[in-house]
Amino acid sequence: MKKMIENIFSGDIHSAASLITMIENSREDSIDYIKEIFPHTGNAYVIGITGSPGAGKSTLVSEVISSYRKQGKTVGVIAVDSSSPFTGGAVLGDRIRMQKHEADDKGVFVRSMATRGNLGGLSRATRDAVFVMDAMGRDIIIIETVGVGQVELDVAKMAYTTAVVLTPGMGDDIQAIKAGIMEIGDIFLINKADLDGAGRVEKDVFYMLHIRGARHDNWQPEIFKTVALTGEGIPEFVQGIEKHRKFLLETGLIDNKKYTKGQLINLIKERLEIMVLHDIDGSVDECVQKIVHKEIDPYTASDIIINKIKS
Amino acid sequence: MKKMIENIFSGDIHSAASLITMIENSREDSIDYIKEIFPHTGNAYVIGITGSPGAGKSTLVSEVISSYRKQGKTVGVIAVDSSSPFTGGAVLGDRIRMQKHEADDKGVFVRSMATRGNLGGLSRATRDAVFVMDAMGRDIIIIETVGVGQVELDVAKMAYTTAVVLTPGMGDDIQAIKAGIMEIGDIFLINKADLDGAGRVEKDVFYMLHIRGARHDNWQPEIFKTVALTGEGIPEFVQGIEKHRKFLLETGLIDNKKYTKGQLINLIKERLEIMVLHDIDGSVDECVQKIVHKEIDPYTASDIIINKIKS
Repeated sequence: MKKMIENIFSGDIHSAASLITMIENSREDSIDYIKEIFPHTGNAYVIGITGSPGAGKSTLVSEVISSYRKQGKTVGVIAVDSSSPFTGGAVLGDRIRMQKHEADDKGVFVRSMATRGNLGGLSRATRDAVFVMDAMGRDIIIIETVGVGQVELDVAKMAYTTAVVLTPGMGDDIQAIKAGIMEIGDIFLINKADLDGAGRVEKDVFYMLHIRGARHDNWQPEIFKTVALTGEGIPEFVQGIEKHRKFLLETGLIDNKKYTKGQLINLIKERLEIMVLHDIDGSVDECVQKIVHKEIDPYTASDIIINKIKS
Repeated sequence: MKKMIENIFSGDIHSAASLITMIENSREDSIDYIKEIFPHTGNAYVIGITGSPGAGKSTLVSEVISSYRKQGKTVGVIAVDSSSPFTGGAVLGDRIRMQKHEADDKGVFVRSMATRGNLGGLSRATRDAVFVMDAMGRDIIIIETVGVGQVELDVAKMAYTTAVVLTPGMGDDIQAIKAGIMEIGDIFLINKADLDGAGRVEKDVFYMLHIRGARHDNWQPEIFKTVALTGEGIPEFVQGIEKHRKFLLETGLIDNKKYTKGQLINLIKERLEIMVLHDIDGSVDECVQKIVHKEIDPYTASDIIINKIKS
């Protein structure tokens, strides 16, 4: 264990990847490692990038990586796939494209995280993977997510700056569903801005930001147009991230983003759950049978089991 | 309380709507009502219908309602909106269209459920709303959901028959992300089947079902083409639901669907969480500060708080 942790501190990708695999598989001993490395974290800048499948996120992330590499910064990428809780990793094809960076540059470490049938655990695993990359000494950590489910909302809390990627021609319905996503974006990107309709999406975003009014942190989200395939707009986007970082530093708000109450509560819930489920397995089966046969209602059943746990 | 419950048993929509509002607002006393009505549930047939926004689900549900009404059956519809955790109800516009049924027919009761910032609670609220409509004596209960997040997976467990709605021209990426949804469908609908590409989607679905192999319950999911706007294919779809219902009855599998272990565990978790969060609020705030200042790591913090709960 000591050797592996030393290797991680010295930036060794192989050791870091092993630990992230342990985390992903929910191995109990991964927790001991996190406890050890935690004091050495807090130096990386964490960026969240989310958007629909097909929005060109992977190409975009690839361009952002290149931009930070040119500044001499090391980059870690965590590609979180919450989309297919059963089959695991349907959109991972995209990741392969990104790994071109990895093959010839030790300054880039790309890692996919897929759910193992447990969406709750995915947020925690992502948080822990951030700790690992941070302890490795990565300057920039990018978390890439798909859409706007619970995991994406959790990731938005972990990231200092969250960028939301939209594209022209998504249709009215898709735009409507993005209402939730408006709340999490510090930066909005209209990618594929060379396509018809880019102006309209930009106007929509502008309008939605406008009607929402001022955020409680007083940050005014910015909108950038990009064409990831040609690299157009990427320098402006990266400058936008830096501007938001400065804002967080100057206002002291960066501290609020370092570890939130919600994250600790989720961790407590998850661990409690694991403990509880170990203890009560037989009782639960018995109660389910009684519920099915209408001998007991679900709430009374849950009372019985909770009392058993507390005693 | 006694009067309201009697009203619900006699099918009164106003009383049922009031109770569902209590449930949606997570009011503690709604639990007492559920305990009372629970023994009178279990007679309705619960159907889940899920698909992307823009797939024409609302029109489809409207047609299915008409079909069941012609058979003299009463219908309850629960339209679950998990899409916008912050703004609440962005896609509710669709619901309004469905309510034409409600205005002039007491045999149809349509109800929207939106999250109040708590996605976890939404599944439970939906389950309880099903109990209410069941206790009212509704023959058929349709739960309409959007996409394939945790709530949709939970709903697929509540529903006896789950139908997944796809449409032509969704693009490769969208289809890819539907990998998870393949697992929950007992029936697949290709809606808007008059559009170009319907044959291709059908082939894709057929192929994905084929490569997955036999389900452990040995049900062979069926595929139907529909044009909800004209009513084309709806009778076949409704017959498909009946066929699946018969399969569940004949194999005895319907009992497994009546109340699952997973549902009870979720309920226990949720109630435990509420109890716990009440107790530990101050400790959590304190721990978060220590974590931010690297005086303690998150896992050690969660150990401390869990020990506090257990003592």
